[in-house]
Amino acid sequence: MPHPRLLLLSNSKNYGHGYLEHAEGMIKGFLGDVQEVLFVPFAGVTVSFDDYTGLVRERFAELGYGLRSVHEVDDAVAAVGVAAAIAVGGGNTFHLLARLYETGLLQAIRARALDGTPYMGWSAGSNAACRSIRTTNDMPIVEPPSFTAFGLVPFQINPHYTEEQIPNHGGETRADRIREFVEANPGIHVVGLPEGCILHLEDGELQLIGEKPARIFLRGEEPFEVAPGASLQFLMG
Amino acid sequence: MPHPRLLLLSNSKNYGHGYLEHAEGMIKGFLGDVQEVLFVPFAGVTVSFDDYTGLVRERFAELGYGLRSVHEVDDAVAAVGVAAAIAVGGGNTFHLLARLYETGLLQAIRARALDGTPYMGWSAGSNAACRSIRTTNDMPIVEPPSFTAFGLVPFQINPHYTEEQIPNHGGETRADRIREFVEANPGIHVVGLPEGCILHLEDGELQLIGEKPARIFLRGEEPFEVAPGASLQFLMG
Repeated sequence: MPHPRLLLLSNSKNYGHGYLEHAEGMIKGFLGDVQEVLFVPFAGVTVSFDDYTGLVRERFAELGYGLRSVHEVDDAVAAVGVAAAIAVGGGNTFHLLARLYETGLLQAIRARALDGTPYMGWSAGSNAACRSIRTTNDMPIVEPPSFTAFGLVPFQINPHYTEEQIPNHGGETRADRIREFVEANPGIHVVGLPEGCILHLEDGELQLIGEKPARIFLRGEEPFEVAPGASLQFLMG
Repeated sequence: MPHPRLLLLSNSKNYGHGYLEHAEGMIKGFLGDVQEVLFVPFAGVTVSFDDYTGLVRERFAELGYGLRSVHEVDDAVAAVGVAAAIAVGGGNTFHLLARLYETGLLQAIRARALDGTPYMGWSAGSNAACRSIRTTNDMPIVEPPSFTAFGLVPFQINPHYTEEQIPNHGGETRADRIREFVEANPGIHVVGLPEGCILHLEDGELQLIGEKPARIFLRGEEPFEVAPGASLQFLMG
């Protein structure tokens, strides 16, 4: 059985860079000679699906790839069935998941990704690759039928991970929030993935790409850092 | 039919102050000659319900009030039925709501609060007073059966509201997140309630207490500020 092929970005826009610019080389290496990518804009809320698709289409064209969106085709499930690669964009994770259930694309995309079709995502799209969206940072603005997501990896990702705090503010830190997750969910690892970092899964090998370490959380263990290049295979257990 | 009596705090611990210290005067004015408060510690995750209750009990004792927790009594629903006042503490809003459903306290507390029993909450406890928890800042670490909450007011509260941002970080601002909520939920007002601020509902009159303005969001309108003391009656429509 083929392994999933995954490229999971923490974010789309690194501070001071253009859209997806920091990941250009990785995207080209990952997609290779794919002609056209099927895009899922469902996480967009304050941007229309058309405008969101336009932005991403322009960016992918610059990298040499065609792009169609699932909201532009007559039969989205059929389009997933024949897609050469799938890209799930960022935005609001609850909005994304609710539309994935509504359209039947949750099962369709999951089946193709488990079968080895390249899946790339950023932010909400990386959250959705996990078993559930329970480690999202997003506001639960709409109610999906369930928090269960694609389940392409056995661990959870927290995108946009940061240890910075707003000064003189009493709200929980990001690490506090993830500690609550692991307390309530024994046995599940969380990867705090800083902006600019990428998880790459190929042939069952999981790699951290980027210039910052990721922070790993598990109930009963002190959170610890893994540096880019270090082995992440323990997450695949 | 009696009006609900509500005291809804943005937060428990103002920067540089002790637990609930900034709200002492308001709490005493609100509870008056109540003897004992019934406490709901269900939002606690990394603190045990016992420890959380101990902290709050100590604080209320200093203000002259006895306190029991719903997790300490044999029949929590019956305890709600005879409570002189109810206090719902902060923590993780999803954890709180899941336990409220599990224990049957969602309906029990709602009925008493609608009947005029004083209800006070802070952070998650203020979120829960709204129609749903869809404007929480918390991580969805557990999955409640529904996002529907007590529904004691017709608007939504965003506690710990801030317009500050972590520098050089690309994640959404708080205002971005609330704009996504109003886009997806036409006709529902959101009150961005800064730390230190309190909403007080008495005899159907809604008042903002504190030293900072609250920010009001509604789809199709520019977000605007209301100052402490200004009328908030438009939120009760």
